[in-house]
Amino acid sequence: MSQSSTENRRIVLAERPQGLPNDSTLRLETSDIPTAGDGEMLLRTKFLSLDPYMRGRMNDAKSYATPVEIGGVMTGQVVAEVVTSNLEGFTEGDLVLAGSGWQDYAVSDGTKIINLGKDPANPSWALGILGMPGYTAYAGLLRIGDPKPGETVVVAAASGPVGATVGQIAKIKGCRIVGIAGGAEKCAHVVDNLGFDACIDHKADDFAEQLAAACPDGIDVYFENVGGKVLYGVLPLLNPFARMPVCGVVSWYNMPNLPEGPDMGPVIMGTLLRQKVKVEGFIIFDSFPASVYDDFRRDMTEWLKDGKVQYKEQIVDGFENAPAALNDVLLGRSFGKVVVKVD
Amino acid sequence: MSQSSTENRRIVLAERPQGLPNDSTLRLETSDIPTAGDGEMLLRTKFLSLDPYMRGRMNDAKSYATPVEIGGVMTGQVVAEVVTSNLEGFTEGDLVLAGSGWQDYAVSDGTKIINLGKDPANPSWALGILGMPGYTAYAGLLRIGDPKPGETVVVAAASGPVGATVGQIAKIKGCRIVGIAGGAEKCAHVVDNLGFDACIDHKADDFAEQLAAACPDGIDVYFENVGGKVLYGVLPLLNPFARMPVCGVVSWYNMPNLPEGPDMGPVIMGTLLRQKVKVEGFIIFDSFPASVYDDFRRDMTEWLKDGKVQYKEQIVDGFENAPAALNDVLLGRSFGKVVVKVD
Repeated sequence: MSQSSTENRRIVLAERPQGLPNDSTLRLETSDIPTAGDGEMLLRTKFLSLDPYMRGRMNDAKSYATPVEIGGVMTGQVVAEVVTSNLEGFTEGDLVLAGSGWQDYAVSDGTKIINLGKDPANPSWALGILGMPGYTAYAGLLRIGDPKPGETVVVAAASGPVGATVGQIAKIKGCRIVGIAGGAEKCAHVVDNLGFDACIDHKADDFAEQLAAACPDGIDVYFENVGGKVLYGVLPLLNPFARMPVCGVVSWYNMPNLPEGPDMGPVIMGTLLRQKVKVEGFIIFDSFPASVYDDFRRDMTEWLKDGKVQYKEQIVDGFENAPAALNDVLLGRSFGKVVVKVD
Repeated sequence: MSQSSTENRRIVLAERPQGLPNDSTLRLETSDIPTAGDGEMLLRTKFLSLDPYMRGRMNDAKSYATPVEIGGVMTGQVVAEVVTSNLEGFTEGDLVLAGSGWQDYAVSDGTKIINLGKDPANPSWALGILGMPGYTAYAGLLRIGDPKPGETVVVAAASGPVGATVGQIAKIKGCRIVGIAGGAEKCAHVVDNLGFDACIDHKADDFAEQLAAACPDGIDVYFENVGGKVLYGVLPLLNPFARMPVCGVVSWYNMPNLPEGPDMGPVIMGTLLRQKVKVEGFIIFDSFPASVYDDFRRDMTEWLKDGKVQYKEQIVDGFENAPAALNDVLLGRSFGKVVVKVD
């Protein structure tokens, strides 16, 4: 089923999942294509970004942001093309970065829309290395993690769009960088193509021992995006005055209930105390002033041009495949940044 | 048994405790009084400070600092009198703040010794409001907690030397301050004498509900010194961009094993992420530059003089009563800052 010029496909939240989303969670619907009024434009989606945070938006609980309503279009960032525009600054054929969600068409008044121009190089990169995941890596690592040359930085989901970028920026800053990923293929990519000093397979039985061996001088910065056993393997290795930016805990997103004990609270808090660790949770577009975004765009554009940062994208073809592809992201079965090619 | 001029009483660590220290943990010994050589002075202890951190020093584990050796004198800060001095800057009769531990006499070369002069007002206060606990409250609250007028600050052990000081400083800074303490008598003291806006008894069955009711605008700063159920009651109330200085987790110090589950790790880390919380563990004399200590001494001296800060001390008479009194501190049975009058 491909994109139509007469119908708007929308994927809506049918019911709130317990644990991993399943076939009942999301529903594909069609509706009429909306019309752009005065001061509005009509957008047609070309690429839809899939990101771990989307699982949180399916919950009713207090989360990053307002949850998706039951029956509402799933939240998501897209690269879209302007079909018609009654809005200054946007003309037909412009590509834009928008938050219009999982649907073919949307009307916008231009709020929070970034115009990428008529012919940007790699338009989908605005959803990845030049967008939210890249910015998350940049600001979290540099503004909270504050890595210094010679320090050891650890990041999980190291072949994913955030982890891969954290590691490559840490390398640029002169750090030893140890990644964690799922499986030999991803680990090889992380070391061979991205230049990490080491990468540990979190599926290994002796994961904690391997991590300790890869960090002989302890850990100075742990960029936290997964939680779970990776966090618990990192804690005993943290050096005094370590820093821990927290942008996600994806291994815990699909739990219907809290894990069995023991309660690791005393280990977490006791480590922060004894090692004088600084931890900061952040939501990228809430936590930093616009000047940091400008720094990011400037630095990242240069690093990409100079080949100092490599970027791996996995393109999923077909809008209807987005739900299954999101589950792959949540389960660590994707490889690189996942975008759905919608048009 | 009182202080002698011919014998040195010492309380040493006899064995490492599992859980709460008991009669086998510490042992009272006597030895000869040491002699001050060239460049040294002999100190006679007048007051010994009792503090929760001492429990951690009894463990062999990686802790704040080097553990006390088996057979070694228990670590502790004291106010002592100079008996004889072969050291410039110290003369007989000077009172000093020293780290000479649980014993009547010690020889010092002056390293890390602060001379309080011959006749300081309230010499034991150097162990409390004008010393480590007061400084912990001041630097942790102001430099990490960064409280702003109108914000809500929560602190546990609110009748203790750190908590009471945190609350009174927060009040000076224009905050709403909610304390947590054990029992009606302490709560009444905290509200009536220290000026807290509310104080919740952590022994109440509906503690979490009472805490929520006392914080109608959520919590902006949680000064963490206890962990456990207080922390878990605070987490759901934290506001976006809340700050959490961590100076102790005393409710967890005496556990021989981790508590039963569920594992609260996902709740802790998930809250830090969603609410963009900043957490920082600190050890007071490691974490701040000397200029902060100078600010503290200046501000606190003025606040005490102006009656803006009240200070409650519990004097335990007799060196041999120190072990039981330390357990009272660890169990929340003490009231105010506990010092042992040794001489």
